[in-house]
Amino acid sequence: MDEIERRVVSGTILVNGEPTSCVSALDRGFQYGDGVFTTLPVCRGRPAVLPRHLARLERDCQRLAIPFPTRDALARESRLLSEAYPDGVLKIQITRGVGGRGYRPPEPALPTRVLSMHPPPDYPPELWTEGVEVRFCRFRLGINPGLAGVKHSNRLEQILARAEWSLGDIREGLMLDTDGHVTEGTMTNLFLEKSGALITPKLDLCGVAGVMRALVFEAAGELGLAVEETRVLPDQLYAADELFLTNSVVGVWPVRRIEGQTFPVGPVTREVSRWLAVRIQEESAAAWG
Amino acid sequence: MDEIERRVVSGTILVNGEPTSCVSALDRGFQYGDGVFTTLPVCRGRPAVLPRHLARLERDCQRLAIPFPTRDALARESRLLSEAYPDGVLKIQITRGVGGRGYRPPEPALPTRVLSMHPPPDYPPELWTEGVEVRFCRFRLGINPGLAGVKHSNRLEQILARAEWSLGDIREGLMLDTDGHVTEGTMTNLFLEKSGALITPKLDLCGVAGVMRALVFEAAGELGLAVEETRVLPDQLYAADELFLTNSVVGVWPVRRIEGQTFPVGPVTREVSRWLAVRIQEESAAAWG
Repeated sequence: MDEIERRVVSGTILVNGEPTSCVSALDRGFQYGDGVFTTLPVCRGRPAVLPRHLARLERDCQRLAIPFPTRDALARESRLLSEAYPDGVLKIQITRGVGGRGYRPPEPALPTRVLSMHPPPDYPPELWTEGVEVRFCRFRLGINPGLAGVKHSNRLEQILARAEWSLGDIREGLMLDTDGHVTEGTMTNLFLEKSGALITPKLDLCGVAGVMRALVFEAAGELGLAVEETRVLPDQLYAADELFLTNSVVGVWPVRRIEGQTFPVGPVTREVSRWLAVRIQEESAAAWG
Repeated sequence: MDEIERRVVSGTILVNGEPTSCVSALDRGFQYGDGVFTTLPVCRGRPAVLPRHLARLERDCQRLAIPFPTRDALARESRLLSEAYPDGVLKIQITRGVGGRGYRPPEPALPTRVLSMHPPPDYPPELWTEGVEVRFCRFRLGINPGLAGVKHSNRLEQILARAEWSLGDIREGLMLDTDGHVTEGTMTNLFLEKSGALITPKLDLCGVAGVMRALVFEAAGELGLAVEETRVLPDQLYAADELFLTNSVVGVWPVRRIEGQTFPVGPVTREVSRWLAVRIQEESAAAWG
């Protein structure tokens, strides 16, 4: 156990590899939300599909022209935290680092990487077996192809949408873009199933293309399900046979109710869900050795 | 001189009143850009029109439902930094404070306030007398009435627009919204003058309504100039008699060139500019006592 390994046991946050919770107030992450992040569950010391999350972080950094820290450093620090805290949620954040005042990116930018471990969420198990209730949010997603798909740290739209309701029975809010198309949940991607085919909102104008969403595409391919990315109107949801939500922390949540209309937890949702669970377990074990 | 006053002399940043440059990596400002800010020049120990900036911060906090720290605390800390660093640029930032993982705002939120002093910009004086050259940015502003007008900390659009050019002769980039309307510069508001009347882009769909922009409205009222907020297309700029940019740090910059077309530094720009300079000096002296 080296010095950092020893100290990490007493802290849940690593900033550029050092156990501390302190970042500079002049970091562009703090100044402007100038960064990207990803979030993944850690079970029995294994971060789930970590290589997929690192690949996504690298793609998102490229989109924003943020220099990417090495995968080795991120993987090593993920392992350190996961060994010290074997069950929880790992968040990995990369920012453009400390800069002076003004929007112009510093040259060269020295990125900041922050890995933090959080307690596992305490969702009741029936959310997976019976499904979740969702609502439509009033707050809309602005359209901007230049940022669409990226899990960046400018998240005021999601925050203001999430602030519209307190917990109760509602587990997620669906967001429309400013043109009125259903895009995603505040923290999830959305899939519709209709007559044996999957439909999911196209994310070329706004929204976050999740790691789990990409895995559903792979599941569909292997299960022989058609999957279409397209613009989705609210009425199409009510006409669907099944609906489900995905993100890396929850996996798949069937939707059992939207604004008063109920849906069954159907066979396609269950099949995709099982496929994902097996694939995630296999990949995570293989990556971890 | 109390303890904080003594220590502030050796630091240029106050976080919740304490001289430090450290903020928590779990602060929602760092996690999500969940905050607002304002920037103002300090000359000979006096922050320019500070009460207007504090009023704007308070309005912007209300828009995002972030609890507003007291004006007294912000004014006191602005005074401390301005006395220690009599010439520079003061940035005041307020975030929703430290929170757990997830977009839902913590209840209650304990906001973080960060005041930081920065060196005065070293712009050559001819930018004010002869005007600046500007370009059109390719990166667009997404439309979202729920955030329009607010100087919030989600600034990736401005950052990616500002990254399109390195300095050279170009001092500012103008941004269109995704519908193709000219909205503002990356760090300035824009005014056109045509036949004795002022026109400025309406900021109900996107953009930042600057403190200096509001002062130009007052100038126009006192100088007997009509001023209209409306949608502006790029061609209207080329047809203007005069163009100028405003922000709190530079005041008024005449535009002398856009993408090859030149403009004079005209009488209306000079008149508005002089009115602002006098008013800012008077108000700042009165507020400071």
